[in-house]
Amino acid sequence: MKQLNAEIVAVGTELLLGQIANTNAQWLSEQLAKYGINVFYHTVVGDNLNRVKQAFSLAEDRADIIIVTGGLGPTEDDMTREAFQLISQMELEIHEPTMKKIQAFYANQQRQMTPNNKKQARVFKGCQVLDNRAGMAPGMIVSHRDKTWIFLPGVPSEMKHLVNRQVFPYLKRLTGNQDIIKSTVLKFTGIGESQLEHEIADLIRSQTNPTIAPLAQHNGVVIRVTAKAETEEKASDLIKNVKESILKRVGDYFYGVDQETMEAQIITQLVKQNQTVSAAESLTGGMFTDKLISVEGASAVCPGGMITYDAKIKQRLLGVPEELIKEYGTVSQECALAMAKKVLSKMHTSIGMGFTGVAGPGELEGKPAGTGYVALCTNDGYEQVEPFLFSGSRNTVRRRATLKGLEILFKYLKSED
Amino acid sequence: MKQLNAEIVAVGTELLLGQIANTNAQWLSEQLAKYGINVFYHTVVGDNLNRVKQAFSLAEDRADIIIVTGGLGPTEDDMTREAFQLISQMELEIHEPTMKKIQAFYANQQRQMTPNNKKQARVFKGCQVLDNRAGMAPGMIVSHRDKTWIFLPGVPSEMKHLVNRQVFPYLKRLTGNQDIIKSTVLKFTGIGESQLEHEIADLIRSQTNPTIAPLAQHNGVVIRVTAKAETEEKASDLIKNVKESILKRVGDYFYGVDQETMEAQIITQLVKQNQTVSAAESLTGGMFTDKLISVEGASAVCPGGMITYDAKIKQRLLGVPEELIKEYGTVSQECALAMAKKVLSKMHTSIGMGFTGVAGPGELEGKPAGTGYVALCTNDGYEQVEPFLFSGSRNTVRRRATLKGLEILFKYLKSED
Repeated sequence: MKQLNAEIVAVGTELLLGQIANTNAQWLSEQLAKYGINVFYHTVVGDNLNRVKQAFSLAEDRADIIIVTGGLGPTEDDMTREAFQLISQMELEIHEPTMKKIQAFYANQQRQMTPNNKKQARVFKGCQVLDNRAGMAPGMIVSHRDKTWIFLPGVPSEMKHLVNRQVFPYLKRLTGNQDIIKSTVLKFTGIGESQLEHEIADLIRSQTNPTIAPLAQHNGVVIRVTAKAETEEKASDLIKNVKESILKRVGDYFYGVDQETMEAQIITQLVKQNQTVSAAESLTGGMFTDKLISVEGASAVCPGGMITYDAKIKQRLLGVPEELIKEYGTVSQECALAMAKKVLSKMHTSIGMGFTGVAGPGELEGKPAGTGYVALCTNDGYEQVEPFLFSGSRNTVRRRATLKGLEILFKYLKSED
Repeated sequence: MKQLNAEIVAVGTELLLGQIANTNAQWLSEQLAKYGINVFYHTVVGDNLNRVKQAFSLAEDRADIIIVTGGLGPTEDDMTREAFQLISQMELEIHEPTMKKIQAFYANQQRQMTPNNKKQARVFKGCQVLDNRAGMAPGMIVSHRDKTWIFLPGVPSEMKHLVNRQVFPYLKRLTGNQDIIKSTVLKFTGIGESQLEHEIADLIRSQTNPTIAPLAQHNGVVIRVTAKAETEEKASDLIKNVKESILKRVGDYFYGVDQETMEAQIITQLVKQNQTVSAAESLTGGMFTDKLISVEGASAVCPGGMITYDAKIKQRLLGVPEELIKEYGTVSQECALAMAKKVLSKMHTSIGMGFTGVAGPGELEGKPAGTGYVALCTNDGYEQVEPFLFSGSRNTVRRRATLKGLEILFKYLKSED
């Protein structure tokens, strides 16, 4: 099996004006990774003959396979063929089946075919023509100086169609690649990217198959484990072994793989343990319960909740004692715990949660924005309160408090499992 | 005014694996176009020191301004600084304010700071440091061989923040660009993109400065009005005139400009009208109240709410009569209205809202997923119920029901204003 490197060159001024994102390169890269072809560069260049030519020369110097998207259409702006001709000196000829298709299209539409429409039917002599059933301009596979050039239309649906039907079978033969690439994302919470990396630094360095790559995301840290093997089964085994090694070190922070969310894991655990949960939310204002209810099947384990934003509502509707609020304030661990206990008793759930704090931007009860408490209690007497101090905007603080609540609940359920 | 050309270099293997699209380059290109700066190339390169170095050398050869996104973080994969050092021989030093920020963050979180976190605080000697309030790693503006290098974090929110606040003022001075480009987004609800476009088709065609561009977004339709003028004031006047012409036609559907949200407009109206609101949420599970509470100042007009997901909770805690549920079911306009009335009376608010429906994916009470009702009632006897039938996933249905509730409340308040 040959290890081949690719560069993806997108031609089109609309990309450089920011009118569209280069999602073609993203999609192609994702697919090429599965075939074991490394992509080393993406280049975007506008509709300028000289710059396209330079980008092509450079790509031919540094890649084995050059995939070009765009610039094959009928207008004067479309100059992919012209630019490649300048570096290759290859001749163009009319591809008759395409020409007939274009003529038939115009006849059908009862529209006059303009001369520039012929442009689309020109292909390089001796190339492999990729029949475009979704549009006019065909794609091409061209060999030049031992490099493989693949020219594709820029319209995503046409490009994907040609690639799936004609380019990948070609690339598979070219690379002789029988290997499968499989990757899994391990998700963590309550640990930073750098600490996570620190804990498994030797694994990251020593592992080449699977590879291990930590990544920070807005709601936690993930590790991508990517394996290459002859069969799906072998790739899965490789991933399984590495996953075990990683979880031996940092399993305490692990909550799921791939598309699994913490809230879905919580619902699964609640069902399994025959438990139910409700929350009294001040600071988070419904965001925590909303997260749980976003999961299919939540109705069985989450009967409802109370949003008690105002201190009077905390007293009158939830039943937090007035004296407690007078003595400790609403932003206190005492109030968070009382809220958790009261909502549990009102909603008849086995677990109660309480959220209170200062969303900001102003301070409250002499406490700065970002201060708060999350409480968890159970109907058999367990109780826990965690203070926090988050930075960020009002809604960042609220999101982080919600995430903190999910973390606390998830860890509690894990310890009971 | 100097005509300057830019290249945008994104560093990150995740882009070459197709895990994310290079939306940073799109956004930057769109912004740079407004400042009259041509973007000639986008380059994406992976986390490989030699290839990053080569991409940087090439960019310096062919552009006046090189904007680099990504590779400034704490891990071993982050090598933007190292690569630039190889081509520039410039020295790095610790940026003390950043170092203090990182230390404070870890102290706050009661987490151990690992040595690699220091990496993020290193900046090139003599560069202009771009203070990153949204994250850890600062950006940098560096002059080298008469070229301007702008280093930015790869996280889109951090990147945009730095660019808007610090990079654009810099570029404006650099290019000596005298024209101001100003644009405003007008936001609409309850009208489709094609109807909106139809109503103002002649304005769109006849206007060249400002330009008028309708755009569909996931929570409604917006119109972007963009003006070019010598001064901010002149641009604002141009926009103001066009805005008036547009609102004469479709003002009934208008709810705000730019960053203004419907929930913020609702809170403003509630305060102004001395009204308060609470909601009983089944289907939406707290999402509606959460939206309101996300607005600063909501505490004055939104004391709380009830999440009554389970039918028993609707009866026992909210007080919806058992007979009503038996006769009409929970997914009924009668139940939605009873929920609105009961929550109003429990929370002592002037307006009550009720949300009930089938989130799905399964059906409920013989009604398909996506069916539901939003009710609004007031303490002076006004009442209104709107049925809906949304398509989409469980959480799309829940989001749309929330949006519907905001629309109903907004329109009610507008009619009272």
